[in-house]
Amino acid sequence: MTNRNSFGIVGGDQRQIALAESIAADGYMVYTHGFDRAPPVKGVKEVELEELAERCDTVILPVPVTADGKKLNAPFSSKGIPLDDYFAGFMVGKAVYGGMMGRLFPTSNLWEEVDCNDYFIREEFAIRNAVPTAEGAIEIAMRESKDVLHGRKVLVAGYGNIGKVLSWMLKGMGADVWVSARKEKDLAWIQVFGYHPVNTADLAGKKDFSVIFNTIPAVVFTAKVLAGLSTQTKIIDLASAPGGVDLDAAEKLGIPVLQALSLPGKVAPVEAGRIIKDTIYSMMEE
Amino acid sequence: MTNRNSFGIVGGDQRQIALAESIAADGYMVYTHGFDRAPPVKGVKEVELEELAERCDTVILPVPVTADGKKLNAPFSSKGIPLDDYFAGFMVGKAVYGGMMGRLFPTSNLWEEVDCNDYFIREEFAIRNAVPTAEGAIEIAMRESKDVLHGRKVLVAGYGNIGKVLSWMLKGMGADVWVSARKEKDLAWIQVFGYHPVNTADLAGKKDFSVIFNTIPAVVFTAKVLAGLSTQTKIIDLASAPGGVDLDAAEKLGIPVLQALSLPGKVAPVEAGRIIKDTIYSMMEE
Amino acid sequence: MTNRNSFGIVGGDQRQIALAESIAADGYMVYTHGFDRAPPVKGVKEVELEELAERCDTVILPVPVTADGKKLNAPFSSKGIPLDDYFAGFMVGKAVYGGMMGRLFPTSNLWEEVDCNDYFIREEFAIRNAVPTAEGAIEIAMRESKDVLHGRKVLVAGYGNIGKVLSWMLKGMGADVWVSARKEKDLAWIQVFGYHPVNTADLAGKKDFSVIFNTIPAVVFTAKVLAGLSTQTKIIDLASAPGGVDLDAAEKLGIPVLQALSLPGKVAPVEAGRIIKDTIYSMMEE
Amino acid sequence: MTNRNSFGIVGGDQRQIALAESIAADGYMVYTHGFDRAPPVKGVKEVELEELAERCDTVILPVPVTADGKKLNAPFSSKGIPLDDYFAGFMVGKAVYGGMMGRLFPTSNLWEEVDCNDYFIREEFAIRNAVPTAEGAIEIAMRESKDVLHGRKVLVAGYGNIGKVLSWMLKGMGADVWVSARKEKDLAWIQVFGYHPVNTADLAGKKDFSVIFNTIPAVVFTAKVLAGLSTQTKIIDLASAPGGVDLDAAEKLGIPVLQALSLPGKVAPVEAGRIIKDTIYSMMEE
Repeated sequence: MTNRNSFGIVGGDQRQIALAESIAADGYMVYTHGFDRAPPVKGVKEVELEELAERCDTVILPVPVTADGKKLNAPFSSKGIPLDDYFAGFMVGKAVYGGMMGRLFPTSNLWEEVDCNDYFIREEFAIRNAVPTAEGAIEIAMRESKDVLHGRKVLVAGYGNIGKVLSWMLKGMGADVWVSARKEKDLAWIQVFGYHPVNTADLAGKKDFSVIFNTIPAVVFTAKVLAGLSTQTKIIDLASAPGGVDLDAAEKLGIPVLQALSLPGKVAPVEAGRIIKDTIYSMMEE
Repeated sequence: MTNRNSFGIVGGDQRQIALAESIAADGYMVYTHGFDRAPPVKGVKEVELEELAERCDTVILPVPVTADGKKLNAPFSSKGIPLDDYFAGFMVGKAVYGGMMGRLFPTSNLWEEVDCNDYFIREEFAIRNAVPTAEGAIEIAMRESKDVLHGRKVLVAGYGNIGKVLSWMLKGMGADVWVSARKEKDLAWIQVFGYHPVNTADLAGKKDFSVIFNTIPAVVFTAKVLAGLSTQTKIIDLASAPGGVDLDAAEKLGIPVLQALSLPGKVAPVEAGRIIKDTIYSMMEE
Repeated sequence: MTNRNSFGIVGGDQRQIALAESIAADGYMVYTHGFDRAPPVKGVKEVELEELAERCDTVILPVPVTADGKKLNAPFSSKGIPLDDYFAGFMVGKAVYGGMMGRLFPTSNLWEEVDCNDYFIREEFAIRNAVPTAEGAIEIAMRESKDVLHGRKVLVAGYGNIGKVLSWMLKGMGADVWVSARKEKDLAWIQVFGYHPVNTADLAGKKDFSVIFNTIPAVVFTAKVLAGLSTQTKIIDLASAPGGVDLDAAEKLGIPVLQALSLPGKVAPVEAGRIIKDTIYSMMEE
Repeated sequence: MTNRNSFGIVGGDQRQIALAESIAADGYMVYTHGFDRAPPVKGVKEVELEELAERCDTVILPVPVTADGKKLNAPFSSKGIPLDDYFAGFMVGKAVYGGMMGRLFPTSNLWEEVDCNDYFIREEFAIRNAVPTAEGAIEIAMRESKDVLHGRKVLVAGYGNIGKVLSWMLKGMGADVWVSARKEKDLAWIQVFGYHPVNTADLAGKKDFSVIFNTIPAVVFTAKVLAGLSTQTKIIDLASAPGGVDLDAAEKLGIPVLQALSLPGKVAPVEAGRIIKDTIYSMMEE
């Protein structure tokens, strides 16, 4: 018998495990599927898909739901979970939450009959994930550098969600924070919040940065901009592929570039799971 | 011929290498001895002790000058540098800077004729070193935890130099910062700067901390205090041996304790070298 | 002969005076008209409109350009400056900057031939003006209260430009800052930046605030919400008429409400003039 | 009959009134004497000295207890309260708290038999009072200036209790904060917390400050230092008489100086009363 007080969690990585544990700690029954290779979690029962579907009205899938469009994103499943009519059939009639759920639709027509709720497209989900991303970026900067951040000149390129949180944290740690943006509106905010504003178009010639954090998904660190930097500068590229740095030019100039993607799940799965949970709870209340 | 514009740097680790590079970048001639196993540094010349003594009026030794009282602290020297009359003889008549220089005096009577200047006993040296120590502690906390610091309840035990900087940085990153002290004066400052004050005597029963940073060199985390903590809590012990935690009790309770000592030289030798340099420059001006 | 290096400043209050002085300090020739009742300003020449038009290609009008639609907003002019064909005629062919310039068009058809540039509609203008507004609000709160802001529970209602800056400054001073908003996105930012989020729909029952700063131009402080507050609470209403508070209900309940509008020009005309100048300079560069 | 749950409050200004109200709100019986000219306070009973002494074991006097050494500091008493054997007689055998109680001893030998507890000499009292002092100074700076503090260059001279809190708050509001001190130790802290350090001996020639807050009780703003300042600079002198500014020189140079003393009682009596209460409660627990 399904139960409104039960959650089914199917597939995913450490974030889904943290999510399961956190929902169980809230007093709900939690059933998982796809975690046979993970250690058992307190208050959470690993079951077959049939049993999970039988017991739960609400199912939570990972973000992204799938990488290849064929199997569920389920690194802790030893056999893998194919996305097909069999799988989709269990979801019909249920409230299903997941990230980038559009990728499911080509796998079965049955998804049309499922109440799909994509948490990945919620703005508050992206905003809150900027926190573990920023902390992850700071951790990398600390690990890779022989210097401190405090008192050092650092650049945050781009003033979107990640740029806003990262510049705020770096200033909070005492760094001398420069932030680049293109819009007058963003440059005004950068000045108001006490950072040094730089127009992204004027990055060439800006130098003496100890660390540069790039958040712009376009090659703004061209050979020309890189040529002005010291080889002491470290670039941490947080932008999705192909990233914001001309990697060939950086290599020739001897400037180290670290690419850091999907940080929340890697550096802070507990917080990442908490954010998924809070977002879903708030979607359920609406 | 000695030269007032020359510095001799003898022994030490990455901090002394950073110091040498930084002094050279200020336009001085820099000679080193004891770094044959380290890569060459721009603007710095590795020489025999004789030549160094001949060319430099000012000599900088590491902190501590020696670990065993017999050899200079010189991990990058392949042969080692014995502390004896031969060594001390080269220092006579020179302005020699070092950390914990009292350890040199039993090694030769000639030290009585040396102008010894201990930078380790300067208060500003300890204060500024609290910065790399705090960043190192934060780096460890990030690396060891699956959660973020932002929004989490963290405890800084002790409000000395390190406690002051660490609580300031953690708050700047958005953590929910609790600080313990014993003196009413310190508790007042803790409250004024926006942290939650806790009397160190009342730590028992304080709980739900994500991370505890101990800076108190006395066992305040007794079995009784530890018993109130969750096994999710991580303790990072920054206090010198024997540290502030009853390690046996912590192990029995399953609470992980990380001991982290001498962080400046390990996590940020460049900043550590900069601090030594600034302290010596300021001593030279007096 | 007109001069590209000359600015004409016509009408306005202390902000325009500060603007005139600031542009003169940048090395430009500055002519003013409409300030015969103001003390002379260093490097600035008060002239008749004819002479100003003859000498300047660029003219700056105040914000708002007019209050009544008939005369220029010119409190320092003893005779007043009518808005008519005569006035508009002098502006033809010039680059004219002003705030809320749409109000000029009904006063003369000649405005169609003027290069009008409204700085009031620029987002960066509104963002930067949030700074003097926030400081003015804090000054009022300090002046009207027998208590401090540090450590006190304060509410900022609304998370637009003013709400963002005001909550940031109050937190920087050590207040316990609560911020209300309606959108999940804004509530996420409020949480990320370390304030306590409150849904604006749930204000009823939220209490113990020392000061409430309202920035929402809609009556959110209804009789019901007000009924839950202490008479010790002070409300500072920064929202334009009719404001955000049910004034009758507040009076009956004995809750003091202070209405504070147009703060930048009143509390910090120098900064207000600086913002106008920076906005115009940046519009001229585009 | 005296009562351990009663407090007697004798003399003082708005701070003592706030203190009385706050202690009453904690559930204690509160009797006052010396407030016949003040409006009645909720939960507090104004009585004759005889009755107060009869009912209370604990008596709280103001800070300072007396200005002239003859009468109690009691601005809300219409008749005045002479300090003599009659007054002291009522205090014998009681726990009496007050500020600068040494001034009482010459008024009667009976004070030798009184359990005197001076809260003014407690370090935490001075530290916490730095908060209302700093807010008062900021309020004055805002009121007297036509500019904002945000983004402006301001100087805090002296890094004692007030200097520490004031620089912290000004930075929190977004000012560009410079702090002067003489000790290397203090200069290190100033640098660590992200302010610009200036040696107090080098103030001459430091300029472009929008506001200077002096906390040093010695004339550091000599004619020579003042000569380097702009007449736009405002000096707010928080140091006790004779203050830190050569007033004659300042007048000749046209630099405005505002003297601001005893701010806590003037700008924030509620907080000042809260601090007295907390200090006394903590002294009672010892």
